Amino acid sequence: MGIEDFISSGNERLDKQLLFAAEIDKMTSVLRRTVLIDGSRRENDAEHSWHIAVMAMLLSEYVSEPVDVARAVEMCVVHDLVEIEAGDTFAYDEVANVGKEERERAAADRLFSRLPDDQAGFIRGLWEEFDAMETPDGKFAACMDRLQPFLHNTLTEGHTWPGVRRPAVEKRLDIVRTFMPRVYEWVLVNIESAIEKGWLMP
Amino acid sequence: MGIEDFISSGNERLDKQLLFAAEIDKMTSVLRRTVLIDGSRRENDAEHSWHIAVMAMLLSEYVSEPVDVARAVEMCVVHDLVEIEAGDTFAYDEVANVGKEERERAAADRLFSRLPDDQAGFIRGLWEEFDAMETPDGKFAACMDRLQPFLHNTLTEGHTWPGVRRPAVEKRLDIVRTFMPRVYEWVLVNIESAIEKGWLMP
Repeated sequence: MGIEDFISSGNERLDKQLLFAAEIDKMTSVLRRTVLIDGSRRENDAEHSWHIAVMAMLLSEYVSEPVDVARAVEMCVVHDLVEIEAGDTFAYDEVANVGKEERERAAADRLFSRLPDDQAGFIRGLWEEFDAMETPDGKFAACMDRLQPFLHNTLTEGHTWPGVRRPAVEKRLDIVRTFMPRVYEWVLVNIESAIEKGWLMP
Repeated sequence: MGIEDFISSGNERLDKQLLFAAEIDKMTSVLRRTVLIDGSRRENDAEHSWHIAVMAMLLSEYVSEPVDVARAVEMCVVHDLVEIEAGDTFAYDEVANVGKEERERAAADRLFSRLPDDQAGFIRGLWEEFDAMETPDGKFAACMDRLQPFLHNTLTEGHTWPGVRRPAVEKRLDIVRTFMPRVYEWVLVNIESAIEKGWLMP
């Protein structure tokens, strides 16, 4: 059972695409620190990627520069693929984040080399644009990536916040402050409330 | 813990959007018949929706009419949302499929009424277009929705096929035959092989 049962299509390019489609099913096994809103279990990368893609379809009206929503949705969908090779790095773990960039670049080399060159370039380009947070679409997708776990934390008694201090959360959400100021107002109210409730350290 | 901890943003529209974002986390608990390719557990709707969205980004070159890939990706991402209310209906269960359309329309009414009207209309429109399989984007997204579980079945010894006959699979994949004929050649080879291996009944 598994990839060894794959039957060739007789076309090398199509085979690469289908095998890549099978490979990325592993995203369902890359666990994040965040738990589902019902608290039942940890969320995985496939679920997270899907969730921020839908959120991008809902929240684009709050951005401070025009974005191409459908393109940002594509970015959301592929933004964590490299974690199949590199694993998830908890945003608030400073030690784990040392070397993350290099680790993920090497992972991207390995992962995307399985695709036809043009598609490897296309998807890698979207991932790099997301990571750089320099273009409007990249900033917007990054906002979704920060807001979704924040929303989860506000509804799960700050599940991933034990040991985390307010400035670290503010730093993580800074792209929301600059790119989606109206949404950041809601973030701030929740940060205040989380500190009051003891879910987050001041 | 959960939605009762939601703090208003002070803006009714933004509240609706954030609460909808929280609500759809339930997609992670709508289980499908399909198992993950590693066979470890059943797949859920969030994972499936994400998976077909990435596949749409990989396979658009095989379509027989031009498609807007990014728009089809959006369609993939929202195509199963109504199952939060209606539940998943196994494609090869004829009895369960009786009344599916009405059930899902009522579910859509309930679910999308939580969104601001304009966004309810937009997302519902994408879902209806997917379901109708009449436009190129709708056909393409539907192909991804059929191909992904087919790919899973070919790699999990036909996990959802016990009791299923070849004509039922061919009917389910017919949109791939007409809209992505080169990919359907690969489907056919796999159907033949699955029958030989005893994973699928002739």
